[in-house]
Amino acid sequence: MVQINSNYLKLKAGYLFPEIGRRVAAFKAEHPEAPIIRMGIGDVTEPLAPAVTQAMHRAVDDMARRETFQGYGPTEQGYLWLREKIAAQDFLARRAEVRADEIFVSDGSKCDTANILDILAQGANVIAVTDPVYPVYVDTNVMHGNTGPMSERGEYEGLVYLPTTAENGFVPPLPEGKVDLIYLCYPNNPTGAVATAATLKKFVDYARENDALILFDAAYEAYITNPAIPHSIYEIEGAREVAIEFRSFSKTAGFTGVRCAFIVIPKTLTGKAADGSRVDLHRLWSRRHSTKFNGVSYITQRGAEAVYSEEGRQQVRQTIDFYMENAAILRRTLTEIGFQVYGGGDAPYVWVKTPRGLSSWEFFDLLLGRFNVVGTPGSGFGAAGEGYFRLSAFNSRANVEEAMARLTRDAAALAE
Amino acid sequence: MVQINSNYLKLKAGYLFPEIGRRVAAFKAEHPEAPIIRMGIGDVTEPLAPAVTQAMHRAVDDMARRETFQGYGPTEQGYLWLREKIAAQDFLARRAEVRADEIFVSDGSKCDTANILDILAQGANVIAVTDPVYPVYVDTNVMHGNTGPMSERGEYEGLVYLPTTAENGFVPPLPEGKVDLIYLCYPNNPTGAVATAATLKKFVDYARENDALILFDAAYEAYITNPAIPHSIYEIEGAREVAIEFRSFSKTAGFTGVRCAFIVIPKTLTGKAADGSRVDLHRLWSRRHSTKFNGVSYITQRGAEAVYSEEGRQQVRQTIDFYMENAAILRRTLTEIGFQVYGGGDAPYVWVKTPRGLSSWEFFDLLLGRFNVVGTPGSGFGAAGEGYFRLSAFNSRANVEEAMARLTRDAAALAE
Repeated sequence: MVQINSNYLKLKAGYLFPEIGRRVAAFKAEHPEAPIIRMGIGDVTEPLAPAVTQAMHRAVDDMARRETFQGYGPTEQGYLWLREKIAAQDFLARRAEVRADEIFVSDGSKCDTANILDILAQGANVIAVTDPVYPVYVDTNVMHGNTGPMSERGEYEGLVYLPTTAENGFVPPLPEGKVDLIYLCYPNNPTGAVATAATLKKFVDYARENDALILFDAAYEAYITNPAIPHSIYEIEGAREVAIEFRSFSKTAGFTGVRCAFIVIPKTLTGKAADGSRVDLHRLWSRRHSTKFNGVSYITQRGAEAVYSEEGRQQVRQTIDFYMENAAILRRTLTEIGFQVYGGGDAPYVWVKTPRGLSSWEFFDLLLGRFNVVGTPGSGFGAAGEGYFRLSAFNSRANVEEAMARLTRDAAALAE
Repeated sequence: MVQINSNYLKLKAGYLFPEIGRRVAAFKAEHPEAPIIRMGIGDVTEPLAPAVTQAMHRAVDDMARRETFQGYGPTEQGYLWLREKIAAQDFLARRAEVRADEIFVSDGSKCDTANILDILAQGANVIAVTDPVYPVYVDTNVMHGNTGPMSERGEYEGLVYLPTTAENGFVPPLPEGKVDLIYLCYPNNPTGAVATAATLKKFVDYARENDALILFDAAYEAYITNPAIPHSIYEIEGAREVAIEFRSFSKTAGFTGVRCAFIVIPKTLTGKAADGSRVDLHRLWSRRHSTKFNGVSYITQRGAEAVYSEEGRQQVRQTIDFYMENAAILRRTLTEIGFQVYGGGDAPYVWVKTPRGLSSWEFFDLLLGRFNVVGTPGSGFGAAGEGYFRLSAFNSRANVEEAMARLTRDAAALAE
């Protein structure tokens, strides 16, 4: 009989967002008239930039004529006209050395951060994650057989958790022992914290000393407003020897429903094979990408390319500024009501301490039941997220203002 | 130091199509003026159907307005309006019982047939593939650690190969011993053979008796012209207990550059966990799909939906008929020249015996060098494909006629 991957049975409950979806659906079934405002899942709300939709219309027209029709791309890696613009504008313009042939275009950073495990050994690496953390990093390691079962504390055996809380200013400590793989996400989901060049340098130096690999998720780099904060880990000296970077158009250009991202694997990266030899990670990923993936839609890649045009850049910037004004409103109002508020300055997420020692899910139920506002329980991101709550700035201005008005009006219910 | 997945080092040479690409590029570098006709890779050449591009234009417009903008889909599984049409037209209309909630929309069958291994145990299943076979099935099992190294014969240790050649009329024999997992692809890539209901019933019965799982790849079902041939394995009694089916819009509707496919996992399927319990495969895949994938572009799904409209169906049918006329020209001409020709009647591939005992790659080099025609060496699909050659019907009529004219004109070179 066919045997299943029993590692899946170690996974506790559902993935966070489906679980939120189930609770909201149950509430709506009982209260069909409730004017729910969703500030939970990090999905964008504003339409695509005109430069992007114009490029996509042209691309659809290309697909309608034999002379300009595009089938499989010339490589699974993505069209060179897109990868060259990415290299020039996202990296070289910031003095980060990344070449077009080190970029692999994909259909999402969720997929990339999950799939990267394919080229790494199963169960042989010591893996560190920050806590709280984007659940995909942890769940995919569980699925991959890189952990034991979950402990009562809500931690998987075998993973090294680096707590990032208000106590350490949301700067993760270096691992105490030697680890082989470190996930970092900056600007951070869920805490909205950023990493300074000094913090990143500390991790790059650790990785060089310990021959570790950093998986750096920069999906939210476009939200950085402080000019001193690095956008790419490759702005840090030595990072090309130790880091893979993940980027996405999802939040940068509102592509959550379009699906486009990319991964950077410098040709300078290596890992160790079972026979002790060093193996080029770029070559391994290239083999994985061309065998298990078939490229991203031509129409999507043309849309992504338009993000790098002069008008595309300006339009995308306007939308990001709009979301960041939402974040500022959230920060200001919640602070006024008396919450301890973090993040939201260089990231589209505001990270709030729950009042009165409420657990994250208790606060979720209170916000949903009393205010009809949906947020994301901090504990869904890890044990160290317990007692925190994430609100997203991805929303209409009207929704943000209405949600904040509801909380302000009935602030006593929060303080009770 | 981070350890890599050393199973990748067992993979021999490049994946087939990149290798062909390299040889063609080398030839072009030496002969820049050569009028090369590509009949190798199975990529479509005709534009998308007007119904599809019209739907995609409307979808791009939806993405340009806040009121109709689509972010993440309601589930990673795909929009219900698409899955319901698939269930009704592709399955229920053929009396195959498949419900919308058993369908998962994805970005390609290459990805699906590769990713399905994620939910199965590593190294614990005995796996059978036909030979020749679509290389992705084999290579992904190698990457996943389900095989030993490659033998001199070009077979990976641990895999069970089911030879399908002219000798057995391209009907694979049942595995001699007990296997847990069987890959079948019908209409077949690369041989162009089809499976009768009787052949499929034989495999379904084997799977039921041996508690095995069939992975049925029906990417080319739209090319079936013989009304007696099943399009779906679920037309066979008992298949819902033993089979997963893969479908794709790539060849059906020319979506190779658009990326849309789906996988059917009946809720009646189970596999065995390490503790001996039976586990629902649908639930496992749902967990995988929602954790490691983020849905298919809304624009793409709207395009796929249009394939099921009255005009979409007619337009897509016309293009398929056009390709099948190409296949008929290939079959007729090659037979006239004296080749032994198989396939091409219910599939877009013609499978040719190489003349004079030439090896597949020798014949590749002869066709490329002397006729400037690119095909696919049969040995690239497995040891039993040695001495065969695949030509694809995906081309313009002019190219097909020109390629056949070149061969006819200089047929003596083939017989030499």
